[in-house]
Amino acid sequence: MERFFYPNSIVIFGASKNEKKGGNHVLRNILNFTRENVFIIHPRHQEIYGIKCYREISNLTQEEIDLAIIILPVEYVLDTLEECLQFGVKSIILESGSLYIKDESDKNLEKRIQEIKSKIGGHYRSRIMGPNSIGIYSAKKDDSGLITSLIYFDKLPKLKERNLAVVSQTGLTLSGLLQSYNYIQELGISKIASIGNKFDVNESDILDFLENDDDTDAIGLYLEDIKDGNRFKEQCRRIVKKKPIILLKSGKTEKGKKAIISHTKSLAGNYKVIEALCKQLGIIEVDDFEEMFNVAKCLLNQPIPKNNRIGIISISGAGTVLSSDLSEKYDLRLVEMNETQIEELHQIFPKFAWHDIYNPLDIWSAVEKVGPDTAYKFSGDIFLKENNIDILIYFLTGIEETEFDWDILHEFNQKYPNTAIYMGFFGGDKKLLLKWREVLEDKLNIPTFESITTLFRTISKIM
Amino acid sequence: MERFFYPNSIVIFGASKNEKKGGNHVLRNILNFTRENVFIIHPRHQEIYGIKCYREISNLTQEEIDLAIIILPVEYVLDTLEECLQFGVKSIILESGSLYIKDESDKNLEKRIQEIKSKIGGHYRSRIMGPNSIGIYSAKKDDSGLITSLIYFDKLPKLKERNLAVVSQTGLTLSGLLQSYNYIQELGISKIASIGNKFDVNESDILDFLENDDDTDAIGLYLEDIKDGNRFKEQCRRIVKKKPIILLKSGKTEKGKKAIISHTKSLAGNYKVIEALCKQLGIIEVDDFEEMFNVAKCLLNQPIPKNNRIGIISISGAGTVLSSDLSEKYDLRLVEMNETQIEELHQIFPKFAWHDIYNPLDIWSAVEKVGPDTAYKFSGDIFLKENNIDILIYFLTGIEETEFDWDILHEFNQKYPNTAIYMGFFGGDKKLLLKWREVLEDKLNIPTFESITTLFRTISKIM
Repeated sequence: MERFFYPNSIVIFGASKNEKKGGNHVLRNILNFTRENVFIIHPRHQEIYGIKCYREISNLTQEEIDLAIIILPVEYVLDTLEECLQFGVKSIILESGSLYIKDESDKNLEKRIQEIKSKIGGHYRSRIMGPNSIGIYSAKKDDSGLITSLIYFDKLPKLKERNLAVVSQTGLTLSGLLQSYNYIQELGISKIASIGNKFDVNESDILDFLENDDDTDAIGLYLEDIKDGNRFKEQCRRIVKKKPIILLKSGKTEKGKKAIISHTKSLAGNYKVIEALCKQLGIIEVDDFEEMFNVAKCLLNQPIPKNNRIGIISISGAGTVLSSDLSEKYDLRLVEMNETQIEELHQIFPKFAWHDIYNPLDIWSAVEKVGPDTAYKFSGDIFLKENNIDILIYFLTGIEETEFDWDILHEFNQKYPNTAIYMGFFGGDKKLLLKWREVLEDKLNIPTFESITTLFRTISKIM
Repeated sequence: MERFFYPNSIVIFGASKNEKKGGNHVLRNILNFTRENVFIIHPRHQEIYGIKCYREISNLTQEEIDLAIIILPVEYVLDTLEECLQFGVKSIILESGSLYIKDESDKNLEKRIQEIKSKIGGHYRSRIMGPNSIGIYSAKKDDSGLITSLIYFDKLPKLKERNLAVVSQTGLTLSGLLQSYNYIQELGISKIASIGNKFDVNESDILDFLENDDDTDAIGLYLEDIKDGNRFKEQCRRIVKKKPIILLKSGKTEKGKKAIISHTKSLAGNYKVIEALCKQLGIIEVDDFEEMFNVAKCLLNQPIPKNNRIGIISISGAGTVLSSDLSEKYDLRLVEMNETQIEELHQIFPKFAWHDIYNPLDIWSAVEKVGPDTAYKFSGDIFLKENNIDILIYFLTGIEETEFDWDILHEFNQKYPNTAIYMGFFGGDKKLLLKWREVLEDKLNIPTFESITTLFRTISKIM
């Protein structure tokens, strides 16, 4: 699989000068990464963006090609694929959009590949991703990253300290979902493989590779079916001990299964079996992409909570009530403060509020008395230094009065490496929240949530 | 209650020149609305922001005062309250922050008011909101709106065609939650009452007023307890026939109840009883503020679905699968397309995709063939003109390639007034999504959702 993510040479079929075409986007995406050892096969053009065009792959002087990308109209795909196989290209991605929902072509493809295989015998050594792949993404430490998506990316997210890799049967992951991280980067993404209809390369092939990939610390899967149940089971059992696996399995219902048959032609399998498998192996199941990325940012950007002991500091009394309800609902234990903690907190609270100092802590009167910086830092430290909570949550509302020096949270993470810190917002000025989140998520790796229910549900997934 | 929301004269106790103080914010908030008939009672200042200060309320030449706002340190509150009651102020808001969590003061207050009542006998006619209110908000058609919040608002949202009023036992609604609407305004808000600890005015008093308020089309409640169960039940039974009621009830669990006792001193009541009441009366129960506002924007900005028939147009095949799963989970019926519809859709789809034309509709290949404007408009019209769906959902991902002429949606709303239109996003460039949402939510009243699960859960709440 390495040649898909780290190719030394790339050949493109279907590159285009027309900026509206996928074949243009793929080429420009690649050229943003490298111009070395990039070749174009084109029937008419001499060059595109300064890259020389050849008429056939056999015209190349290069003896070996690591990666071929085919973005051609459906009628040309199979012949081109045969040429690539015969040339001995190590890895091939079928990004031809129009191939992906054509029953007949899938069957043709299978038949033709069998023909080609038997023709070239033992020399056949290519791996094929797709059809209906929209490409791969492979981040580099210098932020240059290789992306072969059909959608153009003028900017790529950077690797973070710890990163998620995604294996997906939808192109969404290599279009909108990756673009989510262009602005506020909640998450580091190491690699994405859009495996499409999985004619050859399937989730298990990529999983084997990601297991030992140093840049990958957690793995997200969007799967409509599982190709080889036993292999998947065995490898997940092994991998989850090192890297968390998050699974979004669609086709859970009869309606969903029907839609899958149309989308990627696979059989969704019995959902109950998959559900049981996840429980047994410790795979984290999620309901949608938003939840996958929320779970991932908690797992990757903060310590993974070892237990269910929780501390809460809320700007609002309603926040203490709602989070008490949710703690009980999701089986989180609000740790009782001891007398020393309460005694110390007296210093920042006005006297009339003393009898209300407990966990969850309503911080408003302390913010009024000593200002937000002191109130949040002091109370956070009181909670953390006992080393008896696994999660500390700050609830704020997006108004300037409650803003504090966010760097405190980074200091806490350094000083108390066993406690995860998350932040929840009860509404607030949207522009202000964006500004806050840019610092909190991007620079300080503090997961933030704009829905208190989503925050608690996410925590329940990682416990 | 009218004098709280439409006062002709206002007197403020505790106005301040210090821009960091709540008493300053309240005054400036009011002066943004009107300078006429605004009076300040202050022991030392001659004027604040050009408003003349009096030493005592009895110094006023004005014979009647509609609204008094008290934002004083706790030790002055009761005497001031007595003066207001004796002066015959029609409505009084106790916004004194420091009063709200002091057990003793609540008891003192009750005792003192009883004393005052008996002293002034039949002349006592004031209504008191709070303590622990942070004010009221009352929108005007000219966007000037009166707000008496302890938090300063330099900008207020505008009334929309249909609007939500909120009655709440937390100050969040008059701080961060209202500020949410400063930028992208998903929702029109007509009135907010922060009723705090409900010493006198309670949710039922406000509900009676809102029942006949022309600017209020739906009512949101955040309640920690219900003061008068029978009255509440009878009025809700009556009101829901005219205006939907959305209830966020906190203190559902034992932990939550404990937190409530500290926050507003009330007893949360038996949650099971409230749950049953909601079912019986048709009150919509929600889990957090985000869900309250999501439900409200669907109810207010689009037609309320009369049935569970749904149509889906998705940019992604994965979107069709996930939304099929969710439709089944939430008991929504994906209406089958008839032959004429399918036949007509052939025009915008490439031939290879013809056999995949059904509901939920994967629109990508049509977008590639005829462009997003035509693909979305044509397919939307095919769905809508049969008049057999109650909800039409567009799923997009935030990349420019899928943007279409949003005005089409407004045309659909005009032409097909019985079908609600919502939009869901599968990730995407955050800045682009903000730009889209500004038009969609603010100008066209199309509710948008960044989580597909949240969208379906919201729909299930209003069915």
